[in-house]
Amino acid sequence: MKKVFLIAAAVMATPAWGLTLVSPDGNLRLDVDVDSAGTPVHSLSYKGRTVIAPSHLGLSGREADMTRGFAVTGESRESVDRSWQPVWGEYETVRDHFNELAVTLTRQDVDSPGVMILRYRLFDDGMGFRYEFPRQDAVKYWAITDEHTEFALPGDMTVFTIPGDYDTDEMLFTSVPLSQVRDEFKRKRRRHTESQAIPGLCVQTPMLLKGLDDKPLYVSIHEAALRNYGGMSLLLDDTTMTLTSHITPDRLGVAAYVKLPFHTPWRTVIVSDDARDILASQLIYNLNEPCALAETDWIKPRKFMGVWWEMFLGEGTSWAYSNDWDAQPGVTDFSKVAPSGRHAANTANVKRYIDFAADNGIEGLLVEGWNEGWEDWAAFRKNHHFNFTKPYPDFDIDSLTSYAASRGVKLIMHHETAGNAADYERQLDRAFQYMVDYGYDAVKTGYVGAIIPRSEHHSSQWMVDHAIHVAARAADYRIMVDSHEAVRPTGLCRTYPNWVAQESARGGEFEAMQGNPPEHTCILPFTRLKGGPMDYTPGLFETDMSTYGGRHTHKAGTTIARQLALYLTMPSPLQMACDLPQNYARFMDAFQFIKDVPVDWRDSRYLEAEPGDYITVARLDKQSDDWYVGAITDENARTANIDLSFLPKGRKYRATIYADAADADYQTNPKAYEIRTVDVTSKTLLKQPLARGGGVAIRLQPVDMLAAR
Amino acid sequence: MKKVFLIAAAVMATPAWGLTLVSPDGNLRLDVDVDSAGTPVHSLSYKGRTVIAPSHLGLSGREADMTRGFAVTGESRESVDRSWQPVWGEYETVRDHFNELAVTLTRQDVDSPGVMILRYRLFDDGMGFRYEFPRQDAVKYWAITDEHTEFALPGDMTVFTIPGDYDTDEMLFTSVPLSQVRDEFKRKRRRHTESQAIPGLCVQTPMLLKGLDDKPLYVSIHEAALRNYGGMSLLLDDTTMTLTSHITPDRLGVAAYVKLPFHTPWRTVIVSDDARDILASQLIYNLNEPCALAETDWIKPRKFMGVWWEMFLGEGTSWAYSNDWDAQPGVTDFSKVAPSGRHAANTANVKRYIDFAADNGIEGLLVEGWNEGWEDWAAFRKNHHFNFTKPYPDFDIDSLTSYAASRGVKLIMHHETAGNAADYERQLDRAFQYMVDYGYDAVKTGYVGAIIPRSEHHSSQWMVDHAIHVAARAADYRIMVDSHEAVRPTGLCRTYPNWVAQESARGGEFEAMQGNPPEHTCILPFTRLKGGPMDYTPGLFETDMSTYGGRHTHKAGTTIARQLALYLTMPSPLQMACDLPQNYARFMDAFQFIKDVPVDWRDSRYLEAEPGDYITVARLDKQSDDWYVGAITDENARTANIDLSFLPKGRKYRATIYADAADADYQTNPKAYEIRTVDVTSKTLLKQPLARGGGVAIRLQPVDMLAAR
Repeated sequence: MKKVFLIAAAVMATPAWGLTLVSPDGNLRLDVDVDSAGTPVHSLSYKGRTVIAPSHLGLSGREADMTRGFAVTGESRESVDRSWQPVWGEYETVRDHFNELAVTLTRQDVDSPGVMILRYRLFDDGMGFRYEFPRQDAVKYWAITDEHTEFALPGDMTVFTIPGDYDTDEMLFTSVPLSQVRDEFKRKRRRHTESQAIPGLCVQTPMLLKGLDDKPLYVSIHEAALRNYGGMSLLLDDTTMTLTSHITPDRLGVAAYVKLPFHTPWRTVIVSDDARDILASQLIYNLNEPCALAETDWIKPRKFMGVWWEMFLGEGTSWAYSNDWDAQPGVTDFSKVAPSGRHAANTANVKRYIDFAADNGIEGLLVEGWNEGWEDWAAFRKNHHFNFTKPYPDFDIDSLTSYAASRGVKLIMHHETAGNAADYERQLDRAFQYMVDYGYDAVKTGYVGAIIPRSEHHSSQWMVDHAIHVAARAADYRIMVDSHEAVRPTGLCRTYPNWVAQESARGGEFEAMQGNPPEHTCILPFTRLKGGPMDYTPGLFETDMSTYGGRHTHKAGTTIARQLALYLTMPSPLQMACDLPQNYARFMDAFQFIKDVPVDWRDSRYLEAEPGDYITVARLDKQSDDWYVGAITDENARTANIDLSFLPKGRKYRATIYADAADADYQTNPKAYEIRTVDVTSKTLLKQPLARGGGVAIRLQPVDMLAAR
Repeated sequence: MKKVFLIAAAVMATPAWGLTLVSPDGNLRLDVDVDSAGTPVHSLSYKGRTVIAPSHLGLSGREADMTRGFAVTGESRESVDRSWQPVWGEYETVRDHFNELAVTLTRQDVDSPGVMILRYRLFDDGMGFRYEFPRQDAVKYWAITDEHTEFALPGDMTVFTIPGDYDTDEMLFTSVPLSQVRDEFKRKRRRHTESQAIPGLCVQTPMLLKGLDDKPLYVSIHEAALRNYGGMSLLLDDTTMTLTSHITPDRLGVAAYVKLPFHTPWRTVIVSDDARDILASQLIYNLNEPCALAETDWIKPRKFMGVWWEMFLGEGTSWAYSNDWDAQPGVTDFSKVAPSGRHAANTANVKRYIDFAADNGIEGLLVEGWNEGWEDWAAFRKNHHFNFTKPYPDFDIDSLTSYAASRGVKLIMHHETAGNAADYERQLDRAFQYMVDYGYDAVKTGYVGAIIPRSEHHSSQWMVDHAIHVAARAADYRIMVDSHEAVRPTGLCRTYPNWVAQESARGGEFEAMQGNPPEHTCILPFTRLKGGPMDYTPGLFETDMSTYGGRHTHKAGTTIARQLALYLTMPSPLQMACDLPQNYARFMDAFQFIKDVPVDWRDSRYLEAEPGDYITVARLDKQSDDWYVGAITDENARTANIDLSFLPKGRKYRATIYADAADADYQTNPKAYEIRTVDVTSKTLLKQPLARGGGVAIRLQPVDMLAAR
């Protein structure tokens, strides 16, 4: 990324607030009161520095206006220190430690009664707050149209974000001062045919803000536990540097149809002067409800390959069985349709992938294009798209089910909906039962295209709840879900841990199209990943798109070593090895790392981090004493300083280091890597050069355990 | 009805048309051509009298304009005479006899290519025509916004119709000349809070038009086989007496999202100079596709009672278990909620109904209010309404299932959705499986309230297909469907004969509210019933609403004898005996007719008919040689002339006649009836007086069969 500087940092005089709340460590301080119009207003500081300047709060809608006329009529406080064990994740145990303040606000004008509670939780690493509306006689139902939550920033901070949109988040990030976002968006924005850009200057969360005073300040803004409400974007006033919430409405202009009692999702502000704390923060998970599932032992984190990547490449194979545009899923007898000869999900090809996965200990295999409907999936323009219980005639699901089982590989189902959530809900129970009948325990869902029901957007209230419904219903069938093109995640995977991953950002697939610059994966962990794991699809070994003879001839924004590091820097319990078996076969020594790296962790330590520039992280396997380290850089070469002091003192580890070769470069020499081993201890400081667009991946095995094997 | 007169009958000079089609009997003649703008135009005559004056045709939408620039480029003709056997209905065999003409029209301007086929079928009793769009390169998908089908009427005919509306059809009929409809609507229209009145002067189909020249002309306009398209209303130009189609759009303004090839539903014009032919016509069924179900022997026409009527009455019982407005279906533990004490669907009360039904040979019992959600079912204002697999705690479904089975009664399920079709689809498979698990084989569905998905209306394309989906999915589970507040029927029950009935008009339930005047049921068979059977809920014996101590104190628009006649004049394979057991117990001699009357017929003969005035019909039981006769009149007393010449010659029948007493009157003495028996033959002409608002019901049993018993 380019270096940018903070133009102005507003110095706010702290007013005499009515109510104050501090974080357990005392570093964060919240002040909240109502202004002269009776509008709630709050501010947040960190170590005495302004994070959120005085900012107004409130909601409005058809039956009630909850923005003004309030007086503080009550408060309650609580301090909580507890911990919980996620089913999977970066840590075996997560501490949930906060001070809470609930402020009751009552409208004073008799003509317009109303009660609103502002609930705050201050953690050492940030703040969550939400609006609560208790049962009240004056308001029973409420069609909420606008949320007026301001985030008045202390100056022209650098922001890492993407344009606001009701339907997509698959853009590259802008990383410029707030004052330059407008021009940057004009320059970069491309047309998304099926997306709805939001009028005005609007940005998406999760976003990261960086301020430079005497020392940096990092602020991550997002939301937690989004349900029964539209997703939040933020309108940017680039003169006052104030962000104001904008909730995705349905096409009737309503952000949420609710019945009281009701509360909004949490609005989250993660704060630190150390970028590593932003990555380590579990604040958003802490603000989500505990696991809703009675049993979770059936949830199995895993790696997987896919009959998938080949469809993106050049003049290769395709999802569709035939070229018969008139063929109707669930109606046409496909056994009588002439095959195109380019259908990837055919039995022989799937078996080839099963064999490679089985031979290399990769537990899962996604197969896309297995079912009827791919000949014509024009979104929105018709009312039925895919059939989720009808395989194409050359996908012999019976024999593949038994073959995969015999080889110890779990097939992963694919449910592309073309955005037709209505059609999917219609088929959902049968689709899941079909999966159970054939032994599938994981599904990748997709919503490419404008949404049906046509009143909805990808991030409108009904679709937010659709995604949760799919996850919850899947759990009834003991199915894990990896949702693509769904509303961006807000930590709900704590509550539904079978919702193992989402896409909801620009993923690795774009390497086959316009490409992803190296900084992209140096930004995602600070932004998109705060909501939950991303199915980014790392493991790209053939980075030269000209290989495939298609129209794309660029090189991907990565070296091979960096692709290995992504398994650490982009943690997910469902982690793909995205490339083709024949590509892996050419680099089996490097592929060894993908075979070895776990996907679930006992502990994690962020060693180095700067948004858009670099990330170095160490993680401890949940099942062994092995540590793994991954480090990546952006388009600039750098030396990772890997301080191994996290290792237990006195124990020697054998480090297997998958590094960029000395002459590696993501543009000119991306496949140059070298693998070396070296013994290390907690006293070791590894200084590891990373190529431009490069990275390093390290496995650390206790020597005593190696000897014992 | 009031007598009205035709003000002006336009005399149309028959132009020199390009193409002509006549009905098998030669009485109907269609002429079709394109006008100077290349717009298709057709006209229809009956016995030389104009039925439809020259009227324009065409469709327009986003991707194509199919209204002008056409030339006739082809024609094909066919004559068909075949018959089919409905699973149930008024006739054991239906003749499908027509001459067909398909006119191919091709746009002549190169810039705007397009091909459209007009397909006509002329039967002896009317015409069906539809638009067809074959696969064509110029138009692949089409968001159709407008259909421009004109019905230019030959003058100021009297029309029996209700106001156009996207969401409801539960109004009383207007029966005035077309020129007076505007004033009549202004006078009568009441606000439907959840309905969408159509801008302009708009009327609904099925409608009946009556013209008086030297002799009457009856014209019924409707549609057949409505699917994948919005429902049709008709805009009325009351200066030219021309009706123009208006298709219910979604809230984005689109009438239908289609992929070519595509065809519209059939537009139907039933014509006769004898009103009885309108009632007897099977034209709309003939234009529907044959039965789509492989097996139909599980479809069992039946009568049923209901834990239902009592909830409409006075300060009586209710659907809800409790008064807890906050209780959430599927979430709240209702066993911990305080019951209101007024819940009708409690085990003891349901058993009481089961006993009465079993004791009197009524095979079915509908129970409404059995499931969670009735405490608060505000439509549209929230996203979840009912749970279809959770009975209230005082509805012991296990014991009721076995008790009903032991007494030979089938419980009928109720699925009220509050218009939330999305929520219903989400639960549909589980709801049907739950029914199967408990032995239910029939469901009454309900859609009271504005529709969710919020892009939709009750009669928009998506909802049209939702209703078909529910019927088709129900068939998978061998479940019969009786849909209420669904799009008005168009004969689809031929294709899905498990779709045994619909409401889709103002039913008997309004007798508990504003009341139904006697003419209402003299109009419904000419209008609403042309689309299929109606669950009108006849059998009202306690017609005095003041009995119940509620706010309604009026008398229903009927005598008891008339209620018995409705079982003949409002034929349906699912026929309710709507009143309370205790009311029937007071009139068991009259109730005998309800016990006896079949619901499925071998043959039917309409003996007398005049829309809005009177109907007399005779029907032959499918299972025996018994004939049944029903006759009703409007608010005027009359004498039904019941010519029994339809009886087999030479066979003597014992007629049991349930007649209005001499002093009966629907307002002053509705419960005065007398039952007499008389022996009759095919030579008998029964002259039976009918009271104001009255009727007569007759069972005719062969005396030789009686002797044999």
